[in-house]
Amino acid sequence: MNKIFWLPAKNNKDYIWRYEGNPLLRREEIEGYQHVCNSAFVFENGVYHAVFRMEDKGACPHLMTGTSKDGIHFKIGKNIDFRLKNGKKFEYYYASDPRYVKIGNAYYLVFCADKNGANPSIYIAETKDFNNFTVLPTGFLPYNRNGVLFPEKINGEYVMLSRPSDEGDTPFGDIYISFSKDLVYWGKHQLLIKRFDTKYNFWERIKIGPGPSPIKTKEGWLVIYHGVNGTCNGWVYSLSVALLDLKDPTKVLYKAKQYLLTPEEIYERVGFVNNVIFPTAAITDKDGHITIYYGSADTYVGVAFTTVDKLLEFVKKHN
Amino acid sequence: MNKIFWLPAKNNKDYIWRYEGNPLLRREEIEGYQHVCNSAFVFENGVYHAVFRMEDKGACPHLMTGTSKDGIHFKIGKNIDFRLKNGKKFEYYYASDPRYVKIGNAYYLVFCADKNGANPSIYIAETKDFNNFTVLPTGFLPYNRNGVLFPEKINGEYVMLSRPSDEGDTPFGDIYISFSKDLVYWGKHQLLIKRFDTKYNFWERIKIGPGPSPIKTKEGWLVIYHGVNGTCNGWVYSLSVALLDLKDPTKVLYKAKQYLLTPEEIYERVGFVNNVIFPTAAITDKDGHITIYYGSADTYVGVAFTTVDKLLEFVKKHN
Amino acid sequence: MNKIFWLPAKNNKDYIWRYEGNPLLRREEIEGYQHVCNSAFVFENGVYHAVFRMEDKGACPHLMTGTSKDGIHFKIGKNIDFRLKNGKKFEYYYASDPRYVKIGNAYYLVFCADKNGANPSIYIAETKDFNNFTVLPTGFLPYNRNGVLFPEKINGEYVMLSRPSDEGDTPFGDIYISFSKDLVYWGKHQLLIKRFDTKYNFWERIKIGPGPSPIKTKEGWLVIYHGVNGTCNGWVYSLSVALLDLKDPTKVLYKAKQYLLTPEEIYERVGFVNNVIFPTAAITDKDGHITIYYGSADTYVGVAFTTVDKLLEFVKKHN
Amino acid sequence: MNKIFWLPAKNNKDYIWRYEGNPLLRREEIEGYQHVCNSAFVFENGVYHAVFRMEDKGACPHLMTGTSKDGIHFKIGKNIDFRLKNGKKFEYYYASDPRYVKIGNAYYLVFCADKNGANPSIYIAETKDFNNFTVLPTGFLPYNRNGVLFPEKINGEYVMLSRPSDEGDTPFGDIYISFSKDLVYWGKHQLLIKRFDTKYNFWERIKIGPGPSPIKTKEGWLVIYHGVNGTCNGWVYSLSVALLDLKDPTKVLYKAKQYLLTPEEIYERVGFVNNVIFPTAAITDKDGHITIYYGSADTYVGVAFTTVDKLLEFVKKHN
Amino acid sequence: MNKIFWLPAKNNKDYIWRYEGNPLLRREEIEGYQHVCNSAFVFENGVYHAVFRMEDKGACPHLMTGTSKDGIHFKIGKNIDFRLKNGKKFEYYYASDPRYVKIGNAYYLVFCADKNGANPSIYIAETKDFNNFTVLPTGFLPYNRNGVLFPEKINGEYVMLSRPSDEGDTPFGDIYISFSKDLVYWGKHQLLIKRFDTKYNFWERIKIGPGPSPIKTKEGWLVIYHGVNGTCNGWVYSLSVALLDLKDPTKVLYKAKQYLLTPEEIYERVGFVNNVIFPTAAITDKDGHITIYYGSADTYVGVAFTTVDKLLEFVKKHN
Amino acid sequence: MNKIFWLPAKNNKDYIWRYEGNPLLRREEIEGYQHVCNSAFVFENGVYHAVFRMEDKGACPHLMTGTSKDGIHFKIGKNIDFRLKNGKKFEYYYASDPRYVKIGNAYYLVFCADKNGANPSIYIAETKDFNNFTVLPTGFLPYNRNGVLFPEKINGEYVMLSRPSDEGDTPFGDIYISFSKDLVYWGKHQLLIKRFDTKYNFWERIKIGPGPSPIKTKEGWLVIYHGVNGTCNGWVYSLSVALLDLKDPTKVLYKAKQYLLTPEEIYERVGFVNNVIFPTAAITDKDGHITIYYGSADTYVGVAFTTVDKLLEFVKKHN
Repeated sequence: MNKIFWLPAKNNKDYIWRYEGNPLLRREEIEGYQHVCNSAFVFENGVYHAVFRMEDKGACPHLMTGTSKDGIHFKIGKNIDFRLKNGKKFEYYYASDPRYVKIGNAYYLVFCADKNGANPSIYIAETKDFNNFTVLPTGFLPYNRNGVLFPEKINGEYVMLSRPSDEGDTPFGDIYISFSKDLVYWGKHQLLIKRFDTKYNFWERIKIGPGPSPIKTKEGWLVIYHGVNGTCNGWVYSLSVALLDLKDPTKVLYKAKQYLLTPEEIYERVGFVNNVIFPTAAITDKDGHITIYYGSADTYVGVAFTTVDKLLEFVKKHN
Repeated sequence: MNKIFWLPAKNNKDYIWRYEGNPLLRREEIEGYQHVCNSAFVFENGVYHAVFRMEDKGACPHLMTGTSKDGIHFKIGKNIDFRLKNGKKFEYYYASDPRYVKIGNAYYLVFCADKNGANPSIYIAETKDFNNFTVLPTGFLPYNRNGVLFPEKINGEYVMLSRPSDEGDTPFGDIYISFSKDLVYWGKHQLLIKRFDTKYNFWERIKIGPGPSPIKTKEGWLVIYHGVNGTCNGWVYSLSVALLDLKDPTKVLYKAKQYLLTPEEIYERVGFVNNVIFPTAAITDKDGHITIYYGSADTYVGVAFTTVDKLLEFVKKHN
Repeated sequence: MNKIFWLPAKNNKDYIWRYEGNPLLRREEIEGYQHVCNSAFVFENGVYHAVFRMEDKGACPHLMTGTSKDGIHFKIGKNIDFRLKNGKKFEYYYASDPRYVKIGNAYYLVFCADKNGANPSIYIAETKDFNNFTVLPTGFLPYNRNGVLFPEKINGEYVMLSRPSDEGDTPFGDIYISFSKDLVYWGKHQLLIKRFDTKYNFWERIKIGPGPSPIKTKEGWLVIYHGVNGTCNGWVYSLSVALLDLKDPTKVLYKAKQYLLTPEEIYERVGFVNNVIFPTAAITDKDGHITIYYGSADTYVGVAFTTVDKLLEFVKKHN
Repeated sequence: MNKIFWLPAKNNKDYIWRYEGNPLLRREEIEGYQHVCNSAFVFENGVYHAVFRMEDKGACPHLMTGTSKDGIHFKIGKNIDFRLKNGKKFEYYYASDPRYVKIGNAYYLVFCADKNGANPSIYIAETKDFNNFTVLPTGFLPYNRNGVLFPEKINGEYVMLSRPSDEGDTPFGDIYISFSKDLVYWGKHQLLIKRFDTKYNFWERIKIGPGPSPIKTKEGWLVIYHGVNGTCNGWVYSLSVALLDLKDPTKVLYKAKQYLLTPEEIYERVGFVNNVIFPTAAITDKDGHITIYYGSADTYVGVAFTTVDKLLEFVKKHN
Repeated sequence: MNKIFWLPAKNNKDYIWRYEGNPLLRREEIEGYQHVCNSAFVFENGVYHAVFRMEDKGACPHLMTGTSKDGIHFKIGKNIDFRLKNGKKFEYYYASDPRYVKIGNAYYLVFCADKNGANPSIYIAETKDFNNFTVLPTGFLPYNRNGVLFPEKINGEYVMLSRPSDEGDTPFGDIYISFSKDLVYWGKHQLLIKRFDTKYNFWERIKIGPGPSPIKTKEGWLVIYHGVNGTCNGWVYSLSVALLDLKDPTKVLYKAKQYLLTPEEIYERVGFVNNVIFPTAAITDKDGHITIYYGSADTYVGVAFTTVDKLLEFVKKHN
Repeated sequence: MNKIFWLPAKNNKDYIWRYEGNPLLRREEIEGYQHVCNSAFVFENGVYHAVFRMEDKGACPHLMTGTSKDGIHFKIGKNIDFRLKNGKKFEYYYASDPRYVKIGNAYYLVFCADKNGANPSIYIAETKDFNNFTVLPTGFLPYNRNGVLFPEKINGEYVMLSRPSDEGDTPFGDIYISFSKDLVYWGKHQLLIKRFDTKYNFWERIKIGPGPSPIKTKEGWLVIYHGVNGTCNGWVYSLSVALLDLKDPTKVLYKAKQYLLTPEEIYERVGFVNNVIFPTAAITDKDGHITIYYGSADTYVGVAFTTVDKLLEFVKKHN
């Protein structure tokens, strides 16, 4: 297996550091579409496979495949032709915010869509070749837009993190955990992480939501998530970290009281939606290097680097 | 089996008619509590068993048992001590809007609660004696406040109607259908009835939600539901009817374009929340008589009578 | 000509007094419909001709004719089949808040509708027999729901009062005056009466709108209008009076700082929309008797009596 | 001294009971004005002195004196001509929600006004004859509408309860305590009672505010206050009780978790603002009888009776 | 006649391309004013005549003349002294968003103003020398801020496009067409283009409004308009195109489902109002070259180039 | 005494000009914190003493000392350990927007905090060494976030400017003046400057609030303040000036109708809150040079220069 795209920090004290070539994908590169932002990435046999959230010029998001050798330059494929198990087309108007995870020998793409014009919910599609995607029966009721599968079964059950939402921009939201034996029927739902809406943790007072698929470490499951603050001129999306118990992921071992990364760069501050860092993928190698891909201002894809040790240190220190 | 409490119409042309003794339960009758409104009712061996939504004087709703011989005068029991399967207490702050259904030889109470301080969702409790209630593991993610079980399995699966909501009073909402093999894990969710938000069906333009457990008829499942209109001075809750296919309840055979019953009486117009008719139970006998119990102005319990034939005629005529 | 329905005051000091038989039209009297409220009335050759705003059970308003000998008991006709000049159907979803006026030997009905699904505006229909109505080309842009024609041309031009609005319940609004040579092309629009939104005239701080067609008196045009106050629990619609110059109706001679009639009776306080008095017709005889018909709580039709002298005295005293 | 107007309970278990002659003052009795509601009352030498909040027909509140022998039938005086110490007129547009208190040999009226067009705040006026009122220099910054003075100095300082508000209907609010040596300069402000906005005390989740002047008892200062709940159709104002330490009123000994009185009667449910009980005066005699005067639906004055012992028992039991 | 300022595309595939010297007019150049944005431009005898929307430092917009030889560098004139036909001053507080059109041998400036303190509506001023402007009687009722005249009479009538609005920022709006024989009285109003508010055309879901005066082509009237999208951090104004029938402009032949130009450059993304492209003028020559002037972030004037053929191709392809 | 940091204008006509080295303090320089913005500054014996509003990475503001020799480069100290007079800790969650003023031989820091979890109000802390701060008893009721002390007693009383607010971002607000003999008890509150919310002074239509401590000049007290405009994409904070009477500061001699400085630079336009200039300090020397420190986009500290003469000229000219 080839090495993942990862660069060391310039300053040893940093817990996280941005790629200087940010943002990765800019508008000009994909004809007929305007923005590429919150997208899914996996690294398999030396190749990066992506599913891009691409906004067409009607401002409608679509999901499109892409591949890369270096994790930086991607060749864009086409709109995914999602199919149901019976081979029929999966009908929907928009699809957004995909996350990839490998479980066993299959890849699962979790994303938000409005199947048959129903209200937005989470859908799971299975693929083995990154080209053909089979959508499973709807496992989640609307309104839910942020779903993230764990990369393995725990105690014989699939595990999902998600944030129940409302019809619109949703000025509230916490992270829930759900379980399933077959990826179709889900239950045993439980509130996992509640946002702080106190007088000293403003950064996530509006809502929080899961980001990339959790990262398995010796000390627990690392959950990278986003938190949203509110100002008189709009919301600010930042990134932070929690740690769940390995065997019982309903137990939160640590949860950072602060953000780890917040919009500072011009491509995070200014765009279709200002002040957004929305993490969606965390490629991790066996040495504990982590490359985070994140949507930036709902307009770009940004990259930041860290390590498992850095995140563990951060989440314990700011618990 | 004794006869159910039911009275014929004075005017043969009416599709539905109120009980003149409305409202049934008034504040004075239950010491320490203020309102009794949206409540569950079943009729078994000549006895009415109720679970009342009772608001204490902190304006917090609780669930309390009650029994009656005549369906009119009820003896109030106590706050239900819900237990989990492991015998531990089911911890919650408030519980509301219960519905009863018998499946096989057990009774199930579906209600809304905020278990362990999580956001409100639907819970299912099983009882065989109307006194001891065992709450099943959480099968539905928040936010969801209106859950209604079908009175039997269909194609080997339990079937639930519900309305996904938001954190507050929820200015939107449609009826979804969900399936389960075990009442614990739920899936195959589907949009069943979408509210009309057109220019000529104002009466349900804000939201709709399921009412009593569906009534099995030869022509299909009768679903009594509420629809909510919006005015500059608040919302108005009315009652109407849909008919689902017997074998495949995801098929809507008919859905009324109009309401069947809307607030007119002073006890429906004026109360803690003005202009509310919120149906929660429909006691049906073998002759097709139907006695609907409904919450009235979030303050009282009202009763209205109809028949299976009347509802079928209405829903077809106003489809 | 027969006498109009009018009753004297019990208390000579009163400026206005209600009919004790209020409300006039109740739900039961018109089959298939729920409410009858803001409606148009004229009195011609001893017969009252009405156009009722009738809400069907989908909560959609329609316009229906009606006649009466006594101004109290009305025989309801049918939904008006509005036609364009070319004989084609006038297509719309809802129509509401009609006002009648006689100009020359024709009657004009001014009402609000959403022609061809466009946003709501004012339409003018001509009738000579109270049965056949021809709708003129659209003379007013949306959003406008309250239009009132003067009963004669002034300086060779038709004159209209109206209140420009917005898409919804419209939390603002003043009365404008407009002119036309042919009832089709309108111009020379001018702000006529601006609502007081000061610290001592709360009663009309949200919006004001014209009511019945202006009444010609020796001292000027009497304009009966409604004003809307806002409270934490909704809006309150009251009735008051202004006086315009006879020859130049763009000149406001007097405008009351107070309301003349505000919701007090249970049928004005409680209904589909609480606390509404919405005047739509003022039948005046040669002796200066005035019978005002008004929508009540968006649910009923109420009647109040006054005289030209009383209104003139009131508007001058409270200017 | 004559006896105060007070009637015993019919049901010994009641903590509070309404006067059957409610509402006291109705519209017809005061010419030129529409509503009489939240008003101040004292009882001195066998005479009731009142200051009425009277809404004129422009919906602007004024303060007007009144007297009564029996506490039921009042003779209305005139608009109070408030003066500054220098004899100049106290200029304002509206004045509302007065409370009376006797300190030493003078009476103080605390009320809300918009002096010189400034935003609404609390003003204190001194009177010795219930006719001439001298307004002190402004002691409170806007926005503040509910001020209540203690009936004596504590530790050499005057003490005020108030609720800071905002420009409009104010969807928040807690009770603060403030101190002064001279009724002019105020300081040492402190949060006294914070509203419960938890999951089980909905009744006061929007805001709370002080009612009548605190009642001195052996066990502490009884504070009758109002709490506001929110529904999809508006707010509901209820009444409850807290007990403060006699010597250090910044210490809350008890605070009820429930309301003691909530709108149930038609005159509390239906009016200019529905569902309002707003206590403003509590006439107490040496036997511990308490007669509470309260604004009802922003339209009427209601009366309820209780005793010192009943309130103490209630506040301890429901702490 | 001199050539218009126009530059060819660098990339032949582009439908539209920006001027690299953007933004044109910056704050420093006009003393005493802060921003220059949405402005009117015509080209006549080799000279560009402009009417600039200039915001003074009280943030109030004014209209000021300007001239240029090259379409890039403008000499600013003075505040326009609008006059009525009778020579009296046209009184108003603010005036904004002007558009120029030549009909016959006169130029007409259509703009928004609040004449005599009335609510904002569309006004038409005639000029023959670009210095003296005569305002016609008010032809449009408030609230209306975007008016655009066709450059010639059609079937003997003047034709106007406009968007009825509300008092504030107006979260809705469609394009209507109106007719007049004399520019004073307007009628036969009709809904022309309704915004898509569907699940796949988000870009214009809030509102749409006409931009420059329509361009006459062999295939129909080209209407350049703006559409507004909504995000949690504010609105985004983009530009697109429709084509109307030459002889009957109430017929929409084509309407693009996508935008043609959306904010991407820093001067469009960042300013007084972020993310705004607001087209107001389209200078077209006989070769079909089109130079579009647009307001940028409510702060600057930007320029983009295209051709008649490009726009026709675009609107047909994306219909 | 050393000279203050001040630079002359490049353009003599300017009333105010920015420091080209803006913004002063950037995130990287203060470890563990994200933003440094609205801060207090004084200049004493050749040293600048600052109290910085520093936002930690939970987005909670804290107050931290700092010193500088040149007014540009600051050495950051630590979080201030505020104490009460009795030596106990001043307990609070957040503290923000400090202003410094010297009265006699002590320095006073006025700031906003939520003492003991009460709602936000103004607190005054005394220091003589810029290290130890004693907080005085609470002199102002919530909600109040902008307090500014005059640099000397006037007529024997301390004088404070402030803006009463609400719980949240507060969409309203005017400047009030208050008096005290001892800095503890405050009274004689008065509306000083009301925002223009007219049709031609949009720039401050939302709210205004005092900035640095007033500057004493021969002609009166110069009050630098901020005004807030509202757009569909958020608020804009600008800076302007008023002049108060020297002996009676309740008299406003002049108040600018326009702003003097509004966001234009990228560090004012783009940040945590876009489009903010929030002045908090004005270091003035005996020659009338003024160096204004202002918070910029809630993210940075900016500097602008002017003189007493320039401000006097400006405020008179634009009165």
